[in-house]
Amino acid sequence: MLSCPIPDNLPAAVELAHGGGGLLTSQLIHQVFDHYFHNDILATYHDGAILPAMGERIAMSTDTFVVTPLFFPGGNIGDLAINGTVNDILCCGATPRYLSAAFVIEEGMKIDDLCKIAAAMAAAAKEAEVEIVTGDTKVVERGRCDGVYINTTGIGIVPPNLWLDPSSLKPGDAIILTGPIGNHGMAIMTQREGLKMTSEIKSDSASLGDIVHALLRVVDLRVLRDPTRGGLAATLNELAEASGVNITIEETAIPLREDVRTACDLLGLDPLHVANEGIMVAVVPADQAATALEAVKRSAHGAEAAIIGTVEAPDPQGAKVWLRLPYGNRRRVEQMRGEQLPRIC
Amino acid sequence: MLSCPIPDNLPAAVELAHGGGGLLTSQLIHQVFDHYFHNDILATYHDGAILPAMGERIAMSTDTFVVTPLFFPGGNIGDLAINGTVNDILCCGATPRYLSAAFVIEEGMKIDDLCKIAAAMAAAAKEAEVEIVTGDTKVVERGRCDGVYINTTGIGIVPPNLWLDPSSLKPGDAIILTGPIGNHGMAIMTQREGLKMTSEIKSDSASLGDIVHALLRVVDLRVLRDPTRGGLAATLNELAEASGVNITIEETAIPLREDVRTACDLLGLDPLHVANEGIMVAVVPADQAATALEAVKRSAHGAEAAIIGTVEAPDPQGAKVWLRLPYGNRRRVEQMRGEQLPRIC
Repeated sequence: MLSCPIPDNLPAAVELAHGGGGLLTSQLIHQVFDHYFHNDILATYHDGAILPAMGERIAMSTDTFVVTPLFFPGGNIGDLAINGTVNDILCCGATPRYLSAAFVIEEGMKIDDLCKIAAAMAAAAKEAEVEIVTGDTKVVERGRCDGVYINTTGIGIVPPNLWLDPSSLKPGDAIILTGPIGNHGMAIMTQREGLKMTSEIKSDSASLGDIVHALLRVVDLRVLRDPTRGGLAATLNELAEASGVNITIEETAIPLREDVRTACDLLGLDPLHVANEGIMVAVVPADQAATALEAVKRSAHGAEAAIIGTVEAPDPQGAKVWLRLPYGNRRRVEQMRGEQLPRIC
Repeated sequence: MLSCPIPDNLPAAVELAHGGGGLLTSQLIHQVFDHYFHNDILATYHDGAILPAMGERIAMSTDTFVVTPLFFPGGNIGDLAINGTVNDILCCGATPRYLSAAFVIEEGMKIDDLCKIAAAMAAAAKEAEVEIVTGDTKVVERGRCDGVYINTTGIGIVPPNLWLDPSSLKPGDAIILTGPIGNHGMAIMTQREGLKMTSEIKSDSASLGDIVHALLRVVDLRVLRDPTRGGLAATLNELAEASGVNITIEETAIPLREDVRTACDLLGLDPLHVANEGIMVAVVPADQAATALEAVKRSAHGAEAAIIGTVEAPDPQGAKVWLRLPYGNRRRVEQMRGEQLPRIC
């Protein structure tokens, strides 16, 4: 974490007046956000950013982050907000380039905390090779927000001739998972519940350009998805439904850390439904599965990747997802109706 | 306003579970947002949207809307969220094309209100000829939001060879204002304060593509700005500072409705500092002022436009803005320190 000195002429906490569009707003923007996000495009004093041409097709994605607590083992809302949108752009097969960042800040938020968050955003943006080019700052009264909510919206360049499509899954395709499940959700939940583990569970929050670019170089991907809210179960159900296929995954093949499994058991949660922020599901044709897995495993964030299952022909009862248990029997993996873990991202 | 029937299988109010990323989230998104925003790009079930190429340069702008009350005379947070971002893109000289829309919804928000807001967004998007191509929905607990906050982020195409620049103002340039000041802010404030006026003050919330495109066809614009938070005073001060010039405006030349003036007097507000959501400041070279004014006045939203002042050489005490009063003396127009009107947009 970078050091976050509070500039001399800023108060220790955000006041409503910082959201009024006057001198205090300028001060907050210049001394905190411009300081951390500085780049040539952001520096122009327009209401918006002017960006260069971006190839034949552009990917665009948006997410507002409302995670609580704002700081958790492995990250904070700032890097989460960058990594989340970067990964959504990557899931379009695109190279992320530019991000906007819009803050809704609760009156009384500590400027020092805001600096820590902005510093984490800057570091995550640098790591992901994206620039924060335009922004917005609003302040609302105490009790009308929860510290800070951050929207990031990103755009990126889609390579020519690439068409990732959630409805393109075919029986025989392999399901690759690039890392262990449940780390982000359980980092948040153990923190919220005050659960003491022998080892601290850390969020997996990370941008996954390394994995995605490695995959795009060597295989013909059907689709990429990051299993965030709703976990692996939601992602696989959405893909099965979009393609009208069945998916069977093997319980023993799914990477899952022992401490995460224990924490899930203690809190009565199914790790298949827990949110992740640093892994991807990649679906590839069967004959490219080994090549794809090797490419992922060689990537910085993919060392624990595994082939976890297979796409199958639909059965007469409609598209669904099955989990094969260690002794050969299987159970259906449903999408949750509502939330298991509110405000996880 | 379109009619907003609540789909049969939706509850009357938003529950926390609608933000969990499961079936209820899908239901809310499909039955409310997809219903109103439907277009070919949004319909693909990606985490992001894939957009076609967009010319040599792209403009990008973001804004989160936290206005209270959510519904006010002349509009609601929905059309405001579209028009505000569309106008910011227009201020870059660009043609707005695609918008993202991200919602943070407070548990307990009426689905019917959400439908009204989504319908207003769809109508405003249609009017502005933009498409809402990707989105996000989060739900937070009661008391962690105020109904709904909406982020919109937009991208648009910048015409070749156009360079609007807030630092390009030159002594002699004319300042054109495209309509009366204070309408949005005072529509909100009279509503909040329960002030009964003989005529209801309506927000000027509107997208201003008609005016901007008319201007770009006939004159060489120095810069365009929409005077929202902080009002005309903030916008002119920012321009004077960016260009290192003085600006003098004539009080008698500034369009201001009588009821807005009265409401400002009653609440002790200076209309120069009150937010607007449907007017623009255009700065043009002196010899093109008449042509520019005529073009604006012929536009649907520009009938009340006026030349309100002139750019002047800087004086030794630094860049500043002056208001010439009816009897010839003048007073300095300062940028507000903080907010006069919190949560106005």
